[in-house]
Amino acid sequence: MKQVHARNYRRIFFGLLFSALVPILGPNSSAQAEKRIIDLTHPFDETTLYWPTNKSFHLDSAHRGRTEKGYWYESNDYSASEHGGTHLDAPAHFAENRWHVDDIPLDRLIGPGVVVDLRFKTMPNPDYLIRAEDFHEWEHQFGTILENSIVLVLTGWDQYWPSKKDYLGTDLPGDVEHLHFPGFSEDAARFLARDRKVSAVGLDTPSLDYGQSKDFKAHRVFGEANVPGFENLHQLGALPTRGFRVIALPMKIGKGSGAPLRIVAELD
Amino acid sequence: MKQVHARNYRRIFFGLLFSALVPILGPNSSAQAEKRIIDLTHPFDETTLYWPTNKSFHLDSAHRGRTEKGYWYESNDYSASEHGGTHLDAPAHFAENRWHVDDIPLDRLIGPGVVVDLRFKTMPNPDYLIRAEDFHEWEHQFGTILENSIVLVLTGWDQYWPSKKDYLGTDLPGDVEHLHFPGFSEDAARFLARDRKVSAVGLDTPSLDYGQSKDFKAHRVFGEANVPGFENLHQLGALPTRGFRVIALPMKIGKGSGAPLRIVAELD
Repeated sequence: MKQVHARNYRRIFFGLLFSALVPILGPNSSAQAEKRIIDLTHPFDETTLYWPTNKSFHLDSAHRGRTEKGYWYESNDYSASEHGGTHLDAPAHFAENRWHVDDIPLDRLIGPGVVVDLRFKTMPNPDYLIRAEDFHEWEHQFGTILENSIVLVLTGWDQYWPSKKDYLGTDLPGDVEHLHFPGFSEDAARFLARDRKVSAVGLDTPSLDYGQSKDFKAHRVFGEANVPGFENLHQLGALPTRGFRVIALPMKIGKGSGAPLRIVAELD
Repeated sequence: MKQVHARNYRRIFFGLLFSALVPILGPNSSAQAEKRIIDLTHPFDETTLYWPTNKSFHLDSAHRGRTEKGYWYESNDYSASEHGGTHLDAPAHFAENRWHVDDIPLDRLIGPGVVVDLRFKTMPNPDYLIRAEDFHEWEHQFGTILENSIVLVLTGWDQYWPSKKDYLGTDLPGDVEHLHFPGFSEDAARFLARDRKVSAVGLDTPSLDYGQSKDFKAHRVFGEANVPGFENLHQLGALPTRGFRVIALPMKIGKGSGAPLRIVAELD
């Protein structure tokens, strides 16, 4: 009897020894260095899409070539609206006395992410308004969205980038009447901000609100609740549903209502 | 005898059970969420320091206040030179056919960091040229700088920010003759880029080269070797010598020679 005990303990001993060493020597330490990083950011260049009434991105060369001293030198000046390309909407964009870009605590911009894939609803309907029910349904399948999650909605609009007509619904300068793309409804924004207390939200369209919105209720609800928004995201389709960390670092514009955003996902 | 064995195994069994469970239930999973993040970035605003010949940062309000529909709306346009404030120097800045901002692989911008504190040498001498020997000495004390490290040099210049006169050495517009601050010598750049194969370098001064440089040899050596540089870093003094990860995410300027950089350190 004692012998059996000893043998059992011995077997479990080596099993546990292995489990204890793996995190020290194995995957964890090397994974630390080798974690897969996916860039969710569109580049800023002459093709970058902006809201029809906003200043688009310009890069003006200050110098490019050899100097008289013989060395190479390149330098440019950039300019744009805060709100275009892959960017952050600070809560202050649509809510008075809420966080500007430089006020947002970093732990609201770095945290566990989930992808809510709604392409089967959005792709057939460019005016699709994302409802609270869409998240209820998602939670039924994948589990409750935890507090301080970063929720990324995959609409599929990324595939239209950089065609202005397909992505925005219109390519007429200044035309805000014929914008067509999906976005959050007021109740979806309320659900995520208040009931789920998410850290931030993002999606692969030009705006938190859908194209046909006239009152920007989603922006206002998220802004009021100090929930930052990430817009014009890229490659959300390359992410798993869960099991990744979002690292979203905006240019630190003092008192900015928004800013160009470099956002990546780090896969577990 | 058997009994002793069983007892020993049992004791080690519970010890290992604990070590095996800790990474699953304990510090690791919670540390994931609670890692301390330090922002190494100066904000971009009217006080942000730029090279005397470069365009400085401007934020122009497009709208700020209630709209006629009753909701709050704030939006701005920004403009600046790529090279000012806390920013990235892409290798292409001083080397032909090397990486532009959007070419730099993310694993060169995210990785283990070390701080080389040279304040005792730099603070008494604003024209201090950082030598390869400074890194030899540091390695003698703290160990070899590993391949793919991100090396941050603490000169102490951060304490002069945002006084243009103290930080740059001159506050005369366009004056590049009286720039005084420390920077990398050519041999220091060569040592880090070639002998240590670092991923990136950074420091808390306006430039990789020292203020009195006329030929920008450090930029050229780092650029040639495709080593990105981080300039005008903030709060390096708040970091430990080792045991942190640098996450340096520049605005993704297509074909940029540099870009505003949001850079943070994540402490183990």
